[in-house]
Amino acid sequence: METVQIQAEKRSYPVIIGEGLRYQLGDVLQETAAGKSRFLLVVDEAVEALYRRETESQLARLLPVSTYVMPSGEGSKSVTELARLWEFAAEKEMDRKSVFVALGGGVAGDLTGFAAAGYMRGVDYIQLPTTLLAQDSSVGGKTGINLNAGKNLAGAFHPPLAVIYDIQTLHTLPDAEWRSGFAEMIKHAYLDGESFLQDLKARVQSVEDMKSPEVASWIRRSIEVKARIVEEDEREQGVRAFLNLGHTLGHALEKELGYGRITHGEGVAAGLWFALALSNDEGVGHWDLGKEKKWLESLGYPMDAPGELSAATLVESMKRDKKTSHGNIHYVLLEEPGKPRKAKVEEDTIRQLLDRYYK
Amino acid sequence: METVQIQAEKRSYPVIIGEGLRYQLGDVLQETAAGKSRFLLVVDEAVEALYRRETESQLARLLPVSTYVMPSGEGSKSVTELARLWEFAAEKEMDRKSVFVALGGGVAGDLTGFAAAGYMRGVDYIQLPTTLLAQDSSVGGKTGINLNAGKNLAGAFHPPLAVIYDIQTLHTLPDAEWRSGFAEMIKHAYLDGESFLQDLKARVQSVEDMKSPEVASWIRRSIEVKARIVEEDEREQGVRAFLNLGHTLGHALEKELGYGRITHGEGVAAGLWFALALSNDEGVGHWDLGKEKKWLESLGYPMDAPGELSAATLVESMKRDKKTSHGNIHYVLLEEPGKPRKAKVEEDTIRQLLDRYYK
Repeated sequence: METVQIQAEKRSYPVIIGEGLRYQLGDVLQETAAGKSRFLLVVDEAVEALYRRETESQLARLLPVSTYVMPSGEGSKSVTELARLWEFAAEKEMDRKSVFVALGGGVAGDLTGFAAAGYMRGVDYIQLPTTLLAQDSSVGGKTGINLNAGKNLAGAFHPPLAVIYDIQTLHTLPDAEWRSGFAEMIKHAYLDGESFLQDLKARVQSVEDMKSPEVASWIRRSIEVKARIVEEDEREQGVRAFLNLGHTLGHALEKELGYGRITHGEGVAAGLWFALALSNDEGVGHWDLGKEKKWLESLGYPMDAPGELSAATLVESMKRDKKTSHGNIHYVLLEEPGKPRKAKVEEDTIRQLLDRYYK
Repeated sequence: METVQIQAEKRSYPVIIGEGLRYQLGDVLQETAAGKSRFLLVVDEAVEALYRRETESQLARLLPVSTYVMPSGEGSKSVTELARLWEFAAEKEMDRKSVFVALGGGVAGDLTGFAAAGYMRGVDYIQLPTTLLAQDSSVGGKTGINLNAGKNLAGAFHPPLAVIYDIQTLHTLPDAEWRSGFAEMIKHAYLDGESFLQDLKARVQSVEDMKSPEVASWIRRSIEVKARIVEEDEREQGVRAFLNLGHTLGHALEKELGYGRITHGEGVAAGLWFALALSNDEGVGHWDLGKEKKWLESLGYPMDAPGELSAATLVESMKRDKKTSHGNIHYVLLEEPGKPRKAKVEEDTIRQLLDRYYK
């Protein structure tokens, strides 16, 4: 069991990582539940059959539990599902001292966290991530849902009370989920520096390699990278924007293809590589683009542009991204591993580079 | 022009009160708009014809403006309207430096404030209240919408950048709005002490009396009462609950009759009087209930129970109110003017008193 303590603006909270933690929730959460009234457990329907019963019985050792089952998939990050969850909470008489608990992947965490942020003007919540992608999204207090106009356009900064990461649950994940989650880990490695990145490149050359026993330590390291950045800038006024590496194009791809057509991590991996290309083009980096691409391709990330999307469409989508300000596109470039920087990039430059590199 | 400065947790903001301030918005908001990108003006359709044009042209002196017209009435404090507003903001390319502006009554302020709190994880907003009720709701940073299960069950603490109160706009209000807004003023007088309360009782014996030239000073005084309490306890952990005086029964009446059947202020006035009755019953106060009732009746507040609602229904509704905690009903009682106290009251006591006093 390893713990990374995250210092948020208003409180500090632990991310606890370990094998089989779901069987010890009653003990692990004992202090956290003190003075609280009830649990509202939100379970993704894909993990319901696997983990609901054990989680409920552990939580019930501490407080009364009501369980809400949400549909799987990015579609649940919607206003409709948010409203359903709020009404359910009210029906079950959740009060201001109730605690929401998200059991599932990033979608469960994002929806439940935002629902908690807005229920009775804010109640607490706990994350029980069951996917690899959630090693990223459960840390840092960002919650949110998608609008028709774009991903995560509605949301709140609302740090959890605790994140309990039972990495045994990763073993039931399909390859697509491993690949999607691992992309954020790779992003953290690029942001961290040569050592973490070389370690991953040396040990991981296929999806099977991702499922190494070392994954627990990679997760811890990845969380530490993110924690260091988030602690410095919780509300994304400055360095937190570095975590957006790979996401400008990534979000545009997800949005324009329609959520679900590619995974989040596939979008991020494509965006990560394009950020390296843009870094070279802007004279900031000296990346061996062929070599970087080859590694990402070996892990199964699709590195070529989906034929149906034009560069112009993707740039328009980027402009609507919430990281845009005053109509400029802010891009995270990378000088070398561990050396990100923010830059304002002209629309035209991005459009031309997309046409040149990303086909 | 009078200014009350409110100290919120994260910032201090001015409430500026004066005649014809809408014609000076461009000047008054000049500093506030510095470094911002765009305005999203949200106008209640009932005030659109009256104030939209002038407000838009004043705001446009500072930044580009997009205007969203929302339907009038409590029905707009809904998830549906929230989602529409969010999508509109995204369509109009509002970014993180955009500022939402609410022009209208409490509904416009509550909806716009909550939309701002959740848009891109929080953008700023300004209140331009046009009703008397908004002298209450625009101060203190509470925003929110209603759920099917109850009033203001979803929301956020999100203080505005500024509140600009053009009291000329009060002159176009119908009597029902004066009465509704004045109830919160009366509540503040009961919370403040003998002097403010005696002043109101002496000078206001009818709706016409409310429209006195002195209303600007009463508004300022009322805002000061609220500001003093909110500054001490923004997040309603302690004394802020005093502002709930009259609202426990008030909310239950609004909810069970269906929003719109009685005004918010009518519910509060009835609840205020019932809180005095409960204070006597609990041995906390020594109110001349007949005299208090007579004054409130003279102002046109309906002080008798609507026949169709049973005491049991009202108590069940109170239990679902978000101020409930661990299933107890927390009530604000009043010893004498200026001396509120919180008490946990048994369901049965409330049920019996409703049957006895409130018929």
